Amino acid sequence: MNIEIINIGDEILIGQVINTNAAWLAEELNKAGYRANRFVVLPDTREGILAGLKEAAERADVVLVSGGLGPTKDDITKQTICEFFDTKLVFNQEAYNDIEVLFGKRGWRNISELNRKQAELPETCISLPNYIGTARGMWLETGGQANKEHLQSQIFNRQSSIFIFLPGVPFELKEMFTREVLPRLQRLFPPKAIFHKTILTQGMGESAIAEILHDWETLLPPHIKLAYLPQPGLVRLRLTAIGPEKNALEHEIRQELSKLHALIPDLIFGYDNDTLEAVIGSLLLSKQATLALAESCTGGYIAHLITSVPGSSAWFKGGIIAYANEAKKELLYVKPETLSNHGAVSEQTALEMAAGARTRFGTDYVIATTGIAGPDGGTSEKPVGTVWIAVATPQKIFARHFLFGDDRGRNIRRTALSALNLLRLSL
Amino acid sequence: MNIEIINIGDEILIGQVINTNAAWLAEELNKAGYRANRFVVLPDTREGILAGLKEAAERADVVLVSGGLGPTKDDITKQTICEFFDTKLVFNQEAYNDIEVLFGKRGWRNISELNRKQAELPETCISLPNYIGTARGMWLETGGQANKEHLQSQIFNRQSSIFIFLPGVPFELKEMFTREVLPRLQRLFPPKAIFHKTILTQGMGESAIAEILHDWETLLPPHIKLAYLPQPGLVRLRLTAIGPEKNALEHEIRQELSKLHALIPDLIFGYDNDTLEAVIGSLLLSKQATLALAESCTGGYIAHLITSVPGSSAWFKGGIIAYANEAKKELLYVKPETLSNHGAVSEQTALEMAAGARTRFGTDYVIATTGIAGPDGGTSEKPVGTVWIAVATPQKIFARHFLFGDDRGRNIRRTALSALNLLRLSL
Repeated sequence: MNIEIINIGDEILIGQVINTNAAWLAEELNKAGYRANRFVVLPDTREGILAGLKEAAERADVVLVSGGLGPTKDDITKQTICEFFDTKLVFNQEAYNDIEVLFGKRGWRNISELNRKQAELPETCISLPNYIGTARGMWLETGGQANKEHLQSQIFNRQSSIFIFLPGVPFELKEMFTREVLPRLQRLFPPKAIFHKTILTQGMGESAIAEILHDWETLLPPHIKLAYLPQPGLVRLRLTAIGPEKNALEHEIRQELSKLHALIPDLIFGYDNDTLEAVIGSLLLSKQATLALAESCTGGYIAHLITSVPGSSAWFKGGIIAYANEAKKELLYVKPETLSNHGAVSEQTALEMAAGARTRFGTDYVIATTGIAGPDGGTSEKPVGTVWIAVATPQKIFARHFLFGDDRGRNIRRTALSALNLLRLSL
Repeated sequence: MNIEIINIGDEILIGQVINTNAAWLAEELNKAGYRANRFVVLPDTREGILAGLKEAAERADVVLVSGGLGPTKDDITKQTICEFFDTKLVFNQEAYNDIEVLFGKRGWRNISELNRKQAELPETCISLPNYIGTARGMWLETGGQANKEHLQSQIFNRQSSIFIFLPGVPFELKEMFTREVLPRLQRLFPPKAIFHKTILTQGMGESAIAEILHDWETLLPPHIKLAYLPQPGLVRLRLTAIGPEKNALEHEIRQELSKLHALIPDLIFGYDNDTLEAVIGSLLLSKQATLALAESCTGGYIAHLITSVPGSSAWFKGGIIAYANEAKKELLYVKPETLSNHGAVSEQTALEMAAGARTRFGTDYVIATTGIAGPDGGTSEKPVGTVWIAVATPQKIFARHFLFGDDRGRNIRRTALSALNLLRLSL
């Protein structure tokens, strides 16, 4: 199957918005055993959209199009779609009912004329429901009426192209693609067997990991590929196996995983969609233990990661963001002489912050952070990027020193992930 | 001038790398008064690259191409370039000398065969120096020898297309584009004046704003365009004016801005790259006032936004993340009977949390949040998405009720932005 991805939007072409939708769709296609052969970004103009659709139809079996379906009038997408597919917009009662349901659920005010127009859809399309927004998706085929039977069968006329129009709002696009589009593509175009496993690591940079893994990687069979996917604060490794039979691939990957685990046991914290914070949550739950935080340089970011985990209230009691020194003293019982003798960014302060938070919240575990995130506040002795992280467990309290870089955002993120990983290794 | 941007790279087409080069180039072009009409991403194959170059040559005056010039994969790209431009690779001594200089400067080991091959360039190209990497840029024109005089004059044959090949490594691309490419494009194609202004709003959805702005938008002069750019929790509006003279455009936009401000005075919190948290920081600084937080459902996310602002320690004292009810009682002095009579998600609890945090931190202002972020914990009386936000000012404490959706992450974000905006309106 030849797939192309089109995004419509002037905001992308002027560099105001980065085209993350294309990357997300491409990654999902890849995970399912397909691959996109081209990305195209088109302007919000009739001529630009028409030319792009025409060229894609000449090359591709399936074209995923996103953007240009919002309620405001900078959208001429649907008119142009009708022109290209030689059809017209008709009011779709089912789509309108869905908009009403959504408005009711959200307690929004009356449905405006603009929202009402979102229920107008090309007559020949199969419309795709949007459970979290007002713009429906549209499935159209060149050469006439989109055939609803395609969606149930594997019969497809290879001389026409399928165009699937998705909303540009990322979370709406993701939901609709996963729920409404991918299963249908899988029925129409059964993919080759592919098996991916992503290994999540924290605590070492990409090149250092690559050196440790070099010999193992060289011995991987040719149908198994390794990719390094670094992100601020962690490195993901992805193994991809392609072959005739999925169970065999899965078995081979599992064997490689056990070799990998023996090489970097402490670095691996999870797989695929795991997050460090969710892994910690599971470990705490299984021990029936609880956690509290004392954050200075991370300023609430660790708490944000933790409370992004659904159900975290079962094991997370709360945190104190002690940005000012008075807060460290009054809320976390850090001694005034500790601050004056060692400074706020010091091992001693980190240890006392952790102890103070444990007293305040009465939890089994605590993480405390203090550091210089930057861009200001560094000295020659304690440059920007200097961080102390303390962890309190039922048995002990210990602290570790880190030296990160000079970017505030990345320092906050790397401190948070390093702190979570220190806690994970203590659990 | 019709400009298109091409990126070559399988890593983009499988979603492993996000195409930030295209966004950066587009933004730079836009700032200079040009605009890209299309982005295309092509695979690392002869057929894919040839087809993409051919199509771009039919449409565009200038094509900026990036990627495919690294030492491991430039074979296919440069061979294909030669095929398309009907020329051959020749060893370029100047390019080789530059590679030697770079290796010397960096203290790298011997130049490998792969690096030596990077000094082979298409015979008809004008090569562009790379001061920070080994891959030279290449300027080629369809229809024969690239004319070095083009680079000095404004004479250009509109029937051919200029292709400029840039390295894919972002910092090399940026340096080469800024230093070697843009000044030449500006001589060849003197740009039209363009002026953008992005208006940042919080507190109302896209459709509702569009209704209020409808009459004003209809009366905008035809050379000024309005675009809606919604994000979770806020809506950005972008005005773009194109014309002969930049000062006149800026003046016109300023007039439209004052009309816009009169229509939605409370919604606008800033412009262009402002953030709500940085705007609040400036307002607090100018009043020499301080802020503390009491977060329940936002779980540290407001603190994270605030502490992402460099220098926020001047006005932010800290926060208490009172996830558990005991933390609300013990750290924020919420009365037990308030929790038992009204529940943790209630106006009364939000008000007492704000008052408690003010006592704890002694700040002028406080924001407090309590709500049901989901996915669990909702009841028919208080469904998921129910939120109370309280704000304490030196004069008063008040609370507002909100009902958001059913996605945990978005509820957290929308609560945080709504809370920051409530505070902003109180400042």
